[in-house]
Order: sequence, then structure tokens, then C-alpha cells
Amino acid sequence: MRPVIGIGMVGYAFMGRTHSQAWRSVDAFFDLPFKPAMVAVAGRSAEATAQAAEKLGWAHAETDWKRLLERDDVQIVDICTPGDSHAEIAIAALAAGKHVLCEKPLANTVAEAEAMAAAAKEAAARGVRSMVAFNYRRVPAVALARRFVEEGRLGEIRHVRAQYLQDWIVDPEFPLVWRLQKDKAGSGALGDIGAHIIDTAEFITGQRLTGVSAMTETFVKERPLAVSSAGLSAGGGAGTGPVTVDDAALFIGRLSGGALASFEATRFATGHKNALRIEVNGSLGSLSFDFEAMNELWFHDHTIGSAEHGFRRVQVTEPDHPYAGAWWPPGHGLGYEHTFVHETKDFLEAIAAGTDPVPSFEDGLRVQRVLAAVEQSAAEGSRFTTVEDS
Amino acid sequence: MRPVIGIGMVGYAFMGRTHSQAWRSVDAFFDLPFKPAMVAVAGRSAEATAQAAEKLGWAHAETDWKRLLERDDVQIVDICTPGDSHAEIAIAALAAGKHVLCEKPLANTVAEAEAMAAAAKEAAARGVRSMVAFNYRRVPAVALARRFVEEGRLGEIRHVRAQYLQDWIVDPEFPLVWRLQKDKAGSGALGDIGAHIIDTAEFITGQRLTGVSAMTETFVKERPLAVSSAGLSAGGGAGTGPVTVDDAALFIGRLSGGALASFEATRFATGHKNALRIEVNGSLGSLSFDFEAMNELWFHDHTIGSAEHGFRRVQVTEPDHPYAGAWWPPGHGLGYEHTFVHETKDFLEAIAAGTDPVPSFEDGLRVQRVLAAVEQSAAEGSRFTTVEDS
Amino acid sequence: MRPVIGIGMVGYAFMGRTHSQAWRSVDAFFDLPFKPAMVAVAGRSAEATAQAAEKLGWAHAETDWKRLLERDDVQIVDICTPGDSHAEIAIAALAAGKHVLCEKPLANTVAEAEAMAAAAKEAAARGVRSMVAFNYRRVPAVALARRFVEEGRLGEIRHVRAQYLQDWIVDPEFPLVWRLQKDKAGSGALGDIGAHIIDTAEFITGQRLTGVSAMTETFVKERPLAVSSAGLSAGGGAGTGPVTVDDAALFIGRLSGGALASFEATRFATGHKNALRIEVNGSLGSLSFDFEAMNELWFHDHTIGSAEHGFRRVQVTEPDHPYAGAWWPPGHGLGYEHTFVHETKDFLEAIAAGTDPVPSFEDGLRVQRVLAAVEQSAAEGSRFTTVEDS
Amino acid sequence: MRPVIGIGMVGYAFMGRTHSQAWRSVDAFFDLPFKPAMVAVAGRSAEATAQAAEKLGWAHAETDWKRLLERDDVQIVDICTPGDSHAEIAIAALAAGKHVLCEKPLANTVAEAEAMAAAAKEAAARGVRSMVAFNYRRVPAVALARRFVEEGRLGEIRHVRAQYLQDWIVDPEFPLVWRLQKDKAGSGALGDIGAHIIDTAEFITGQRLTGVSAMTETFVKERPLAVSSAGLSAGGGAGTGPVTVDDAALFIGRLSGGALASFEATRFATGHKNALRIEVNGSLGSLSFDFEAMNELWFHDHTIGSAEHGFRRVQVTEPDHPYAGAWWPPGHGLGYEHTFVHETKDFLEAIAAGTDPVPSFEDGLRVQRVLAAVEQSAAEGSRFTTVEDS
Repeated sequence: MRPVIGIGMVGYAFMGRTHSQAWRSVDAFFDLPFKPAMVAVAGRSAEATAQAAEKLGWAHAETDWKRLLERDDVQIVDICTPGDSHAEIAIAALAAGKHVLCEKPLANTVAEAEAMAAAAKEAAARGVRSMVAFNYRRVPAVALARRFVEEGRLGEIRHVRAQYLQDWIVDPEFPLVWRLQKDKAGSGALGDIGAHIIDTAEFITGQRLTGVSAMTETFVKERPLAVSSAGLSAGGGAGTGPVTVDDAALFIGRLSGGALASFEATRFATGHKNALRIEVNGSLGSLSFDFEAMNELWFHDHTIGSAEHGFRRVQVTEPDHPYAGAWWPPGHGLGYEHTFVHETKDFLEAIAAGTDPVPSFEDGLRVQRVLAAVEQSAAEGSRFTTVEDS
Repeated sequence: MRPVIGIGMVGYAFMGRTHSQAWRSVDAFFDLPFKPAMVAVAGRSAEATAQAAEKLGWAHAETDWKRLLERDDVQIVDICTPGDSHAEIAIAALAAGKHVLCEKPLANTVAEAEAMAAAAKEAAARGVRSMVAFNYRRVPAVALARRFVEEGRLGEIRHVRAQYLQDWIVDPEFPLVWRLQKDKAGSGALGDIGAHIIDTAEFITGQRLTGVSAMTETFVKERPLAVSSAGLSAGGGAGTGPVTVDDAALFIGRLSGGALASFEATRFATGHKNALRIEVNGSLGSLSFDFEAMNELWFHDHTIGSAEHGFRRVQVTEPDHPYAGAWWPPGHGLGYEHTFVHETKDFLEAIAAGTDPVPSFEDGLRVQRVLAAVEQSAAEGSRFTTVEDS
Repeated sequence: MRPVIGIGMVGYAFMGRTHSQAWRSVDAFFDLPFKPAMVAVAGRSAEATAQAAEKLGWAHAETDWKRLLERDDVQIVDICTPGDSHAEIAIAALAAGKHVLCEKPLANTVAEAEAMAAAAKEAAARGVRSMVAFNYRRVPAVALARRFVEEGRLGEIRHVRAQYLQDWIVDPEFPLVWRLQKDKAGSGALGDIGAHIIDTAEFITGQRLTGVSAMTETFVKERPLAVSSAGLSAGGGAGTGPVTVDDAALFIGRLSGGALASFEATRFATGHKNALRIEVNGSLGSLSFDFEAMNELWFHDHTIGSAEHGFRRVQVTEPDHPYAGAWWPPGHGLGYEHTFVHETKDFLEAIAAGTDPVPSFEDGLRVQRVLAAVEQSAAEGSRFTTVEDS
Repeated sequence: MRPVIGIGMVGYAFMGRTHSQAWRSVDAFFDLPFKPAMVAVAGRSAEATAQAAEKLGWAHAETDWKRLLERDDVQIVDICTPGDSHAEIAIAALAAGKHVLCEKPLANTVAEAEAMAAAAKEAAARGVRSMVAFNYRRVPAVALARRFVEEGRLGEIRHVRAQYLQDWIVDPEFPLVWRLQKDKAGSGALGDIGAHIIDTAEFITGQRLTGVSAMTETFVKERPLAVSSAGLSAGGGAGTGPVTVDDAALFIGRLSGGALASFEATRFATGHKNALRIEVNGSLGSLSFDFEAMNELWFHDHTIGSAEHGFRRVQVTEPDHPYAGAWWPPGHGLGYEHTFVHETKDFLEAIAAGTDPVPSFEDGLRVQRVLAAVEQSAAEGSRFTTVEDS
């Protein structure tokens, strides 16, 4: 019999639903060292939290996340709240000896992220593990992209172009939800989705952004105050309020291996819903990915004869592809939530193996430092700004 | 508190895993009239069935499917076995007052399917429901295609071209698994995947195939006997044995509304993994779908100005798309198993509403009659063969 | 100095414009054995033919095609008229010692085609060459497809699926032009565009269709009579008249090498403008082509590791691709008329080399026999009909 | 009878071949105010120029471009030489009363471009016309994109992302051709292909780049000296020499209407041959174009119901599309050289109408100023650099 490992989750909105589905599913598809138990979910409202527990399959509901830290049947704390609460919860949970899985971005400021990374380092010395939830690393196609780069299939990398394109606030009547408020969200498109493409680009290339030149813009500067509702609300009322985060962020930069990179994160790319796109060009080949077709990786092998050159559409659903063998036969694609299943699987395996899972809080801090460099460059006439060494 | 409804599943191989994930997930995403309980799974081997129960999340394991019929805590029997056992299990379950969800094809012969449809009709009079699991109807994009046709967006339908292309037995060394044996599988590509495109074409168009002209072929006539293993094995040993089913089936036909249709089902379409493709052309517009990009429906609206004509790639992930609103934000795609979640949801709702779910056993019989007409035409020099009226 | 070779063209409508552009351009891009001279164009109306000569760049205008045969400065007769006049013109031209390039389909009946093939054979013995203008063989991507098959890259061919999809007569108010009249056009979609996919399928595979099972349909049975106008008119007036050709033809068949094939030619595939599509699946790889993206060939190589499997989009614009090196740098695509340039180039080279160009009139007769078998099968309840041996 | 207008062309390499095909073809497809006559081509080598004249269809060959200015039968001078000679030839030709069509980039420096624009302005007052050959404006799909923006279909433009991706110098053994030498080419990818995406972005949006932040890079710093050959040679010999231009240029910027834009021009995007790509996102819709599929424009209309949202693939081959009606039926695509045919057609029409054709030398100067701002920003730590007002 495998040991049971208990999970306590904080927050039950969009991310909480996603993580719940991961914890619920992972054991049926992977051979895990632990049997995961969905012990308790924590939220502020007793009634709403109880409803969420029933709906999402958690055995208990708590109205204070600190209660999770006190429970002996909880070994993992899974943080699915907005970024302004990450540091407090994560540091306390690690101090209480709980392994921590924390949603991204790791924090709203570099200072918070530094404190979290320090706490994670100290906890790791005690065998307590932590991981930041950059789930897109666990798209099979993205993991395969990483494998191709690691195997040298791309040669020397010259270009990365990454975009994260959404359009959900194109309508100026869309309300002033928490994600549009700097005190809650830290930043706008930059931290919410720009963080993902920074992490994905560094993950696939195995290189680091050394400096950036950036611009940001807020296209719609005032929005209607939102009526409170789960997950999105600004705690509003009537009238309008100022949007205090960026709607879009563009930046170009250099990677540690000599490549040039361009990034764009926006919520105003009309017609694009969740287009996390990344292309990598190397001296021997190229890769292209778009999350809107998440089961595909496009690969160009430049070492074969030019009469056969061409980007090929690899359906990343074969048994010898990352994660894919655990699921369905070839050609039977996966969906968004599977990335979270893979995340929980890797996290559990690292805990069992006594190794530090990736991406670590240190990796989350890295991304935070890039975000800070972007904001600084944008504030200083786009001048090239070195990313602080982590 | 909602009433609990207990499920008993027969078979735990590929289809059993898929259905299990559906039963496990459906309650977290849809507002259901019942709380589904995964009561028991039945299989022949005590040890393997117990392992499957633990892995897939079933509370009990039974070594005889008849035990499920005796259990008071089971109200639904979910049949995930090969086609040769469907009739016996389904008829007995319906007689025992259990609602039945049965994998496709409904049966291996028209006679069995007729008996099942008769049993289903009789059971329906007693309030006992049945449904055949043509899961591809529940791909959001396919359901949207049906909606567009129903709304008249395509006008008069002139053409359907449907293909189901796989390549998993291209290698002549692939063993003689049960799906390649007529006594187990009924037919080859025809019944396994051809059945899906027949149902999908009739579902989307709302029309029926009235007659067909067909050819079938077995490209590799002898294969190595398989070593026994779960789900695939032929009970073999050493040596080779004859492939007794079709490797590919092609047919053209006419639909009740006057359209021409072509169909192709093959396991020798090298490079295609699970390409269930269907295109529909009408006087006012057209649709195109490929399961390998299952979150997309391509739609051409011919009523707008020709300067703007063009197939558009609709990402079927919007709140106003079928099923999609229950899941993730736009652009966050679903995967293969979600079609089964939708199936169980619709089945539970129909049971609660006291209505007959679709596709019914009668619909399954329809498809069986088309399959029979295809085989008859192929055997008689491809002559046009009328599909028997159901 | 190269010798001059004089061209005389019959007909100056759509095909005449296309061929004129080919004769005008070919010498600037290819190293030809002759310098082609656009000597004369023949048509019935003196005024219209003179205008066409001026517009299309022909030195002289003739009002009787027989005058071209009498001219000493004409060595090639290029036939761009409707199919009902091909036999008479071609046979007379060959008898007069003129090389003949004849538009497809070769003729409107098998009998005419047989007479033409016989005349071509007799002429070839005298060093007089003939060629039927299946221009799609000269799309670089199609020629590359043929090369891949010849080189064995696809292995044993199992499947061909070919479609030629247009939508230009979806509107029932579209008039009764000559292409919709059996006496002028021979057949409808079948002979006009079906002929192309038959030739393309046989060309790429190097195999012959041995038999077919077919259906045809005329969706719109009466159309407005057309007011006379160049190229399309029915010699009409007011009122409506019967459409006497097929709107669509579907057939399945067998190739001499054992492959199954399906074909569809239709002018009612709403949203498709000129989609000549063909896919070929073999034991070692697959190919896919769509003329609407004519500079691309999709190739799947099944001999590499499955982790890298996938159809690749080969841009057929490289120097080592057929024809492409004569034009522009890689990635600078060609258009429709370039296929005709390649045709004239190959024709001139064959004349100079004293070899018989392909596709020959015999090849044109072949296609005619397949068309006849399709019509016969459609008339006889779709029964499998052997293609008469040529 | 229409008046004849005589053309004299300078240079006969890649661009000269392209322009020759345009002058040869334009009269057969468009109703022109003049009958164009290909009078003379000028080059330095008597023998090579004579060969080019024969091959490309020019009546005379001149070994000094100044001779073209003296010819009475030449009314248009078409400049197809490298950028370092544009200013001298164009200014002299305009002074001689010849209309001038000049390849892009207009010049190698802002100072030269200013002198040319001044000369053009002065000439225009005398009825002498000039035009810079940004041919991609004349891709039908690009012209349609412009039309959609003009008609307000995109609403307020928020984003432009433009890339021009090639890979022809990825191999470090590719020789040091003139395009890699600053004194001949002015700059590298920036001026050669970056110029095109700047012009295309400003053309489609109708807005101007107001400032940029940039990076450039030369990945391969030494290359083998080239053996002299037409069009590419560096006048070399043995050994290697320094690459003195950029291999790649990235920049982000702001448009006069408030949009953010990103640009990337590179010759190291392995697998991309001639991918001029541009996407435009507006409040009401979006557009996407890739020259590698030049007959397609992807259009998203955000004003229709979200259930039908999606980028549609408009085949820009309809009679009501820009330029397309003059060619072939719908679905019969055009190729690279057609853009030059359209260019000559528009140029001739403007001359006849007595209006100034676009893009003007002033437009060419504009692009030159953007290029200068890019180089300045790249040299000054990527700081935001205002584009000098023209």
C-alpha cells in the first residue's frame, strides 16, 4: 500500500477548479509514489467554501488558510489565490513543514519573491519542497520542444519570438476586475501572461534573459466598477474606476546564449483567445508552438535535404512523447487541465524522491526580476535594462 | 441534497478508463440532477479487476457482470466491453431495470442490434433509459456543427465527405489483436471507426443514408499471433493467423435530403493518428472538422459578400458554445475524454427528465444497418445497396 | 542563334489567355532549344479575334483555324477551344505536320479520343509530336510528389483520395453556359475537373485505375439561358433551359498496384474555389496537396522515429525542386499560369529531342476511358465497372 | 490607338528579371492608357547586357545608364540596381524628364533619400512622376487588408506585429555577397527586408511610426569572399572578409494612432524562406498575412456573435478583390512577380492621370528615416528614438 499524501488548497476560483481537477485525476493515469487525498479547501466565506468543497471534491472546507497548516492530514499546501497573498501563505506553510505548490506569478514584487525563495531554500534543507506553477512547461508539446533543444536538434539558438495574445478586455465596458488593479494583481498582461512566456522561453532554450528593452500601454484607462462575483470582482458598485495595470507589454531582449528575443503580452489581440505562441530558430532547426493548438509542435529539421525542408506538424500524442503515453492512443488530444495533472504528478514524484522540483521558487524569482526589468525599461524610455542576477 | 445515482461498469480496458474519467469528473463541472457514485466495476479476473477498481476509482470490483444487476446501489450499467458481448449484457441489464450506456458499435450484427433496440423500447416504457456511446457527437465543435445546420446556416445540404483515418496497423508486424478478428470485433475499420463517421454525418446533417456503394480491403492478410495482454490480445502464442476483418472501407452514398456523401474508414492512412474528418457543403455555407484539431470548427458563410468569403477557424471554447462554458475560459481547449464527460452529463439529465437520451439504441441499430449495407455492397460488386428501413 | 518555332493558337477565351501568357513568358525563364514566336491566333469573329491578338500578343489573327495549318511560319498548333472541336482540329493539324498541344479533356467521347490517339501515333512516326494539356502535372508540388513516389519514399501505396472542389454554380441563377451543356462540354464536373484528378492520381502514383463504382448528380436541373458573351455563353436569350451535365460526380475505385481510391468532382462545394486536393498514403509515408495552396506539398516520412512524425509543409520553391529553380528565390511562390509555362517548356524540349512528350494523346484517351467507366457505373446502379484497356 | 510609352531599365539581375516579367505581362491583363514598350536595358558589361536583353525581351542593350536618359523612345527609367546607385541615377533621370520607378530601399542613407525626394518634388511640378517599388503593397491580400482598415472594419488599431523572416545565410559558409557589405547595401536585413515591413505596416494601418526602440545583431561576423557572379558577388577572391551589416534587427515602436508595434527582420530564421508576416489587431477586428501563403488574408470580424468568431481564410482571388479580377478565376492563385505587374500598372495609370503615384519618394524617405532611427536606437542602448519628421 502506498502512503497517502493530503492536500490543502487555498482559493477555489478559476485556478482552484483547475488544480482540483488535477488532484482528482492524477492517480488514475500515473503510477504515483503517494495516493493523493483532497483533504481540505480554504476560503473566506463559509458558505461559498463549503459549496466549492462539495463541487470540487474536497473532504473539508476551512475559512482560514492557516487552519490548513495546523492539520496533520495535510502535507501539501496548494496556493491558488491572487498574487498579493502568495508570500504570506507560502512562507507560513513552508515554516509549518508543508510542501508548497504556488500559482504564478510567484509574487507581486521582487522583494516578496526574494523572501519566498529564501524561505524555500531554507525549507528544502529540511526536506520541505516547493514549486511554482508555470503549468505551460507541462504541455507535452512544450516539454518536447525542450527535449529537442537539449538534444541539440536546433543547434545554436538565434531567435526566440514569444507572444501571449488574448482579447478578453477589448470591450471597454468590461468591468474593473481584480486583475486590472495593481494592488491585487501586481501588473496586468505583463505579470499574468507575460510571466508565462518568459518562463516558457527560458525553459525551452535553457538560457536566461540578460536584458530587455520594453514598452507598456494601457489602452482603456477607465472601466466600470464591477459588481462583486467570484473570481473576477473588484468589490465594486456603480461608476467607473481607473485601470492601474498595463493592457499590453512589448519587449525585446537578449538571451545568455547570444540569441535575440521578442516578447508581447496583451489582452487586446482581438480574435486571439489564449494564444501562447513561441518560435525558436536555431542554426540546425526551428520550433513553433501555439497553445490554441496545444497538441501540436511544429518542427523544422534543417539538417535534411532542402528538397524536403519544411515545418512538420508533430502531434504530441505518441507514447514516446512527454506525459502523453499515460493518457490515450495517438491522435486523441489533451486539454488545458492536463498540464496541471502533469504538474501535480511531477511535484509528487519530486517529494517522494527527495529532490527539488522545478520550476522552483528561485525560478519564480527569476521571472519576477525579468518583469521588474521590463517595468523599469518601460519607465525609462525603453532603454536596455539588465535583468538583476538571481 | 441531490439523490445519488450508482454506476456499475463492465470492462476496464481503454474504454473503461475513458468512462471512468468521465464519471469521476462530470459532477465538478456540470450542475447535475444526481450525484454520480462510482459503485463497482466488473471484469473476469479478480486480481486485475480489483487493481482496475483501485486505479480507476471504483468502490467495488465484481468478477461477474451479472452481479452488477443484482446490486441495489447500481442504477446505471455502463458497457465497455468488445461488441460481441453487448447484446447479452444490455438486454439483461435493461430487464433488471438498470439504465444502460453501451459503447459503440451497438452490436456485431443487425440481429443483435434489433434485439437490443426492441429491449430498449420495452424498457423505455418502464422508464428505463438507454444510450449508445457515439461520443463524437459530444465534441463541442461537432455539436456546434449540428446547431449551425439546424439553424439553417448551411441551407440545402449537397455534399458530405467523411473520413476516419488512422495508421496503427500499417506495420505488418503489428499483432493479430482482437480488433482484427471478426468473431470478436464484428468488422474492422468499418465497424470500429466507420460507425463513428456514419453516426456523425447523420447527426450533423439530420439526414439518413438511404443507400451505399462500397469497397473494402484487407491489405495485410496474415499477422503475428499476439501474446495475451489487457485490451488488445488475441489469446495467441507463436506463429501467424489470418486477419478476418477489413483494413479499410470506402463507400459513397445518398442522404435522405438529396445530398451525396463519401466515406472512408482506414487504419492504413500513414501519418494520420485519429483523423475523424467531416466536411459538409450546403447552398448557403459549409463546415469542416478534424478531430485531430478537435477544438476547432471551420465555417464558411456564403451569404456574406464574396470579398470576405473564407472558411473561418472557430475555436469552440466560448461560453455560448455547446458544453464549453462549463469548463475553462475561451482558448483553453478540451481533450478526448471530455466527450465522455458530456455524454454522461446528457445521459444523467435525460434520466432525471424522464426522456429518452440520444443516440438511442434505435440510432445504434440504424448505424448497424448501414454497416450491413456497406458489407453487402462490397460483397456484390459495389452495387448500390439500399439501407434497410429501421 | 536558336531556331524560331512558330505557334498558332485556336481559341482565345480563358484557356487562350492562359496559354498566351505561357508562350509569352517561357523563353525568359528557361533555356529553350527554340525561340518561340507567337505567330497567329484563330477565332470565328474577325473583330474579336483581332482584339484578342492585340491584347494577348499574337502577331496575326485568323478567322478560320484551318488557315493556321496552311501557314509555313506555324509549327505548333495549340488548341484552346471547347472539347467538341478538339478531334477535328487536332487530327487535321497532325495530318498537316503540325505539332499539337491540346487542352483537356482530350475529347468529348471515347471514340473521338481513340481517333485522336491513333492520329497522334501515326504522326509520331513522322516526327510530329502531340501532348494533352493536363497542366496540374506541372505544378512543382505535384511533380515533386511524383518524384517522391518514384524514389520509393511512400513505399507501397494503399490509399488515394482526390477531390476537385469548386462552387461557381452554387447559385441557381447562374446561367446555362456552355460548360453545362452536354453537346458542347461532353460532361459536367466529371470531364472538366474530374479529368484532372484522374490524371493527377495516375501521374503521382504511376498506377492506373482498373475499375470504378460511381454516382453522379445534377442538383440544379434548370437554369436561366445565358446572354451570349465570350467564353461562357450558351447562345441563349430569355427563359430557362435544362442542365444536361452532372453537377457532381463521386466514385471509388481500385488502382493497378492494389490501392483503394476515392474521387469527387463538384461545382457545389460551397467555399472551395479551386481545390484540387489529393492525398496519397503508402506503407512508408504520405503526401497531401491542395491547389489552393499550390506552392506547398505536405509530406509525412514514416521511416523516422515516431516522436518526430508529422506532415511537413514543404514549400516547393527550392532550386532542387521541379521547375522552381528557373523562377525566384525560395519562398517566392508561383501562380496558376506557371503550370502552363512549364507545359510549353516541356513540349518544346520534347520536340527538340525528338521524343514523345507526356501526357500523350494516349494518356488523354486513358482518362477518357475512366470518364466513360464512371458514367457507365453511375448509369448502372453504381456497380463496379472495369476501365477499358487502352 | 493608345500611345506607346518606352521603358528603359537599369540593372538586370534578380530585380531586373522581375521587372522585365512585369513590363512583358501587364498589357495582356490590364486595360492600360499606354502600350508599354521594353526599349532598352542598361548594364556595365556589353556582352552580359546584350544577353540579358535577348533573354528578358528588351529591344536594345546599353552599357551606360546615362544613354537611357538621352533616348527619345524612353519615357520611363526603371532602376533595379543596388541601393548605392539609386540617388545618382534617379536624380539624373528626373532631371532629364524621365518618369522614374526606383527599387527599394530608396537609398542607402537619409541624406541621399532627401535629395531624391526633393528632386521628385521638383519633377512632379513639371509633370514628371516617380515611385518607389515597395511591391508588397500590391499583393492583392495586402491591398485588401488596407481596404478593410480604411473601411473601418478593424476599428481602432491597437497592435501591429510584423516580421520578415528568411534563412538564406544561416550557413556560415555562405559567401560575403554585396548584400552583406555596408558600402553596397547600406544595411543588412534591416534595409533589405525590414524596409518592406515598415512600409507594409504603415500602408495597411495608414499610420506612421513615431518612434522605435531597437536591437541589431550580426551572428556570423566573417564569411568567405565570394567569387564574382551576377547579382550576388562581392568582387572577392580567396579568404574571408568581415560582414559589415546586421544579420537581424528587432524593434518595437509606437504608431501615430496609438498602436504598439513590433518588428523583426532576419536572415537567420531557419525554415522560413520569405515569410513577410504582419498581424494587425483592432478594437473591431484583426488581420493576418504571410507572404509564404500570399493569396490568403486572414480576417477576424469581432462584431459578429462570439459563437462564430474566428479568423477566416479569405482567398484573395475574387473579382471584387484588388487586382485579382484581371487574372484568373477564383482559387487560381498569383505568384511573386504579379506584385510587380500591379506596380507597373498603377504607375502607368498615374502617369496618364497626371497624379503622383504611391508609394512616392517621400514615402521612401519616410522608411529611410525609420531605418535611421532603428540604427540610432540600436547604437544607443535601445533607447526610444523619435523618427525624424519628413
